[in-house]
Amino acid sequence: MTKSTISNLISERAAGRETTHFATGPSDEPPKGFKPHPKPLPLHWGMPNNGFFPIDSIDVNLVDYPFQKSLSLPVTNASLENLSLNSSTDKLVDSAKSNTVRIDRFTDDENLIDISKGLQYSYTNGLAPLLKFTKEFISRVHKPAFEDWETIITTGAGDGLNKVADLFLDPEDVILIEEFTFTPFLANIRSVGGIAVPVKLDISQKSEGIDLEYLEDLLENWETLKPGLKKPKALYTIATGQNPTGLTQGVEFRKKVIALADKYDFAIIEDDPYGYLTLPPFQKPKSFLKLDTFLTVDDYIKDHLTPSYLTLDTKGRVVRIETFSKLFAPGLRLGFIVGHKDAIKAISNYAALVTRFPSGTSQLIVNNVIQQRFGGVDGWLQWILKMRITYAHRRDVLLDAIYESEAYKKKYIDIIDPSAGMFAALIVNFPEGTDIAAKIKLLEWKLIAYGVGVVPGLNMSVDKKFSLARANFLRLTYAPANNDEELKEAGVRLTKAVDEFFENGLEF
Amino acid sequence: MTKSTISNLISERAAGRETTHFATGPSDEPPKGFKPHPKPLPLHWGMPNNGFFPIDSIDVNLVDYPFQKSLSLPVTNASLENLSLNSSTDKLVDSAKSNTVRIDRFTDDENLIDISKGLQYSYTNGLAPLLKFTKEFISRVHKPAFEDWETIITTGAGDGLNKVADLFLDPEDVILIEEFTFTPFLANIRSVGGIAVPVKLDISQKSEGIDLEYLEDLLENWETLKPGLKKPKALYTIATGQNPTGLTQGVEFRKKVIALADKYDFAIIEDDPYGYLTLPPFQKPKSFLKLDTFLTVDDYIKDHLTPSYLTLDTKGRVVRIETFSKLFAPGLRLGFIVGHKDAIKAISNYAALVTRFPSGTSQLIVNNVIQQRFGGVDGWLQWILKMRITYAHRRDVLLDAIYESEAYKKKYIDIIDPSAGMFAALIVNFPEGTDIAAKIKLLEWKLIAYGVGVVPGLNMSVDKKFSLARANFLRLTYAPANNDEELKEAGVRLTKAVDEFFENGLEF
Repeated sequence: MTKSTISNLISERAAGRETTHFATGPSDEPPKGFKPHPKPLPLHWGMPNNGFFPIDSIDVNLVDYPFQKSLSLPVTNASLENLSLNSSTDKLVDSAKSNTVRIDRFTDDENLIDISKGLQYSYTNGLAPLLKFTKEFISRVHKPAFEDWETIITTGAGDGLNKVADLFLDPEDVILIEEFTFTPFLANIRSVGGIAVPVKLDISQKSEGIDLEYLEDLLENWETLKPGLKKPKALYTIATGQNPTGLTQGVEFRKKVIALADKYDFAIIEDDPYGYLTLPPFQKPKSFLKLDTFLTVDDYIKDHLTPSYLTLDTKGRVVRIETFSKLFAPGLRLGFIVGHKDAIKAISNYAALVTRFPSGTSQLIVNNVIQQRFGGVDGWLQWILKMRITYAHRRDVLLDAIYESEAYKKKYIDIIDPSAGMFAALIVNFPEGTDIAAKIKLLEWKLIAYGVGVVPGLNMSVDKKFSLARANFLRLTYAPANNDEELKEAGVRLTKAVDEFFENGLEF
Repeated sequence: MTKSTISNLISERAAGRETTHFATGPSDEPPKGFKPHPKPLPLHWGMPNNGFFPIDSIDVNLVDYPFQKSLSLPVTNASLENLSLNSSTDKLVDSAKSNTVRIDRFTDDENLIDISKGLQYSYTNGLAPLLKFTKEFISRVHKPAFEDWETIITTGAGDGLNKVADLFLDPEDVILIEEFTFTPFLANIRSVGGIAVPVKLDISQKSEGIDLEYLEDLLENWETLKPGLKKPKALYTIATGQNPTGLTQGVEFRKKVIALADKYDFAIIEDDPYGYLTLPPFQKPKSFLKLDTFLTVDDYIKDHLTPSYLTLDTKGRVVRIETFSKLFAPGLRLGFIVGHKDAIKAISNYAALVTRFPSGTSQLIVNNVIQQRFGGVDGWLQWILKMRITYAHRRDVLLDAIYESEAYKKKYIDIIDPSAGMFAALIVNFPEGTDIAAKIKLLEWKLIAYGVGVVPGLNMSVDKKFSLARANFLRLTYAPANNDEELKEAGVRLTKAVDEFFENGLEF
């Protein structure tokens, strides 16, 4: 049997783990005459019978669409509740059915998780129904081009990132990272002794993120450019709606990256927390949501969703990190990883020995809501479509306030209109020769005084010195605001502050 | 300021961590003229507004006592539901009130966690109401003798163990461990490069676990007995209802261990997953549960619960690991750690940088059930009393089957009647000179053929060779069985198999 491509990239630490449990029976040959008992009784597993659980059942009461209870925006043509009745090609979700999902102590439905299993000690990789759902979901939206792929449930993308750092990196191992990124991952890299090497980004409206020419050159001339450093074992990329720039890599771009990974033999860690929130190009926000802006699930997958690296990788070197945080709720601490079975096995061993299994409470709630209320994969995607249109509207409201501003008209700022995700980069057009670090910080104080919180790109750089020349931007998000009015007001405050800052000669 | 005792025992890895977040505002001095805005708007934190969560509210439907829906055992005098009305010294829990706890999207009650907070990104140390509960709970049952103690929520005891391994152990650092123990902790020790050194146990009915003479001698003559090994930084002990032996250390015993810890300057990691399940001595199981066997909470704390090491430690060197797994449900993946604030701070940094915060779903369910249904600390303790009496009854049923057996009467076996927890050690009285490892394994096959699962003590040894002479026992648990009949039948199968094994000259 030939070793898989990815097995050569797995860290010694991860590859060296073996799991056994003290309560598993003997593993050697049984003595002569041994016959297993037809109905064994357990005095071995130290787990309380489910009869000890104080919870008998749980009712989860749901809304039909985001902000149903607080939406100030009118919905025209038909209510959002009935949306699914209009998308005839999709599996229908009956909006008339109860909005409550009952989770019982026992169930015979193999798609559901009951209290007796969900609140019990469980499997490291996740409870079977949810694990099955994640496989069906990935098969529907991002079917891997390689065989032998598996999934494993995590306690959210943060846990997923920790697990892939362990999976690939021994001390002194190198990982390539977009120069501006989700920096908490750097702590996971440090924690296993890895070394993060930043890769240049092109930050402009037409860019797809990574500066491919820079990356090719870096790999081609690694020994010269990075003397003393090992060859990189992995590239970490947020390929869709990149954090913090909001940029998205197209399919052809991804194929080129895959070709580089094949040539230089590194793994690709694809982190995709909000890529499902695909956004049409900016349009003036309307005071109502029109139904014809909604998509069918098939059209969404075919024309809107950028295919994952999984779908382009025939060697099995891609590991994809998913989370339910942005599409369901962050407090669940629930996500999953998709990858070659050898990678998933190594992650499973880490989970079994170090972090243990993810919250059953979260698993049963997410699984049963998706199955019972949304009706499985396509119903879940219809919920995502509702999230998507809500995010698109929010993005439009914020960007409109910016486009209409003096600061924008005076070209003090540009904004990258994102085609996916929760973030837009506001580029500050400082005059040539400006001390970017000093002026961005001063501008941040100005913005705080004006009552608007932003994240300077520099705060999310892997190496401040390396990235200083490209750090003239702020990350904006339209996710947390309570309503349109707040978003609009935030846009107004933001641009007024910038205008005053520039008019004042870049002084507070 | 003098450094705390425990700060000298914290690993370099843990002490070296620092946390910052990229979305926190600037930390330096604001520019001249800066005034904070009275109502700032957020474009910085990448968290979805709670209006995006599909869940509007959750109803948790509860039982009044363990096995309420499946208990075959009659309850006399009064129903268990009304138990609390009879314990006049305790805070009353109104059994008549609804058995459903409603968790709303928003609440003003500071003791409760609502959906908007529980399902949102949250604090590393845990949500405030649950954190407050854990402090109140520990103050009531095991008030630390040292100042400056704190708690931090974990994703269960397994996570707690992983975190304390990181807290104390750098590579080559030594930790003392009961020779038979919860061996999954060994993987956590290996994971940080620590070295586990087993400490002898005395395994007999009158024992309190650790062989104190052995421990004293080991510490006194460390350099001679363990040449080349560093002095131990910590002792890991399951002091109440020890796993797998079921033994419990008394107060005087614990004081001696604390004295050793003070003398040789090591930390004590007290793991206590089921110590609250204090058990009266064995009595013939009755066919009904009599109400007068129930305790008041005050009597339980005063006379039944063995005080934690926390209550005896004036230096703050004890770190206690708690879990909701055994008293509420394992699938929650929820527990907490109690210790000196310097220890908790280091654990919090690890959580912030590596593992992230625990499931909000589990936190809100546990917190709100405890507050709304049980009425806080004393109500929660009354639930524990109901758990306790159910476990005591189960223990009685299993031990009765063993005491009544031929194998017991022929002295082939002894059983340790535990005074707390979920485990009882069945000692197999092999003739002098028996190959214990071989015969225990053969006996295990015999038991499997008879249809009963057990855990050989040897499976839970730190060092098989070191412990072989004391490995003539099996761990039994009365936790997972579905009912009394199963427990009784398991006891009968177990003892019949042993009897046949002995009568057959220790052959299968």
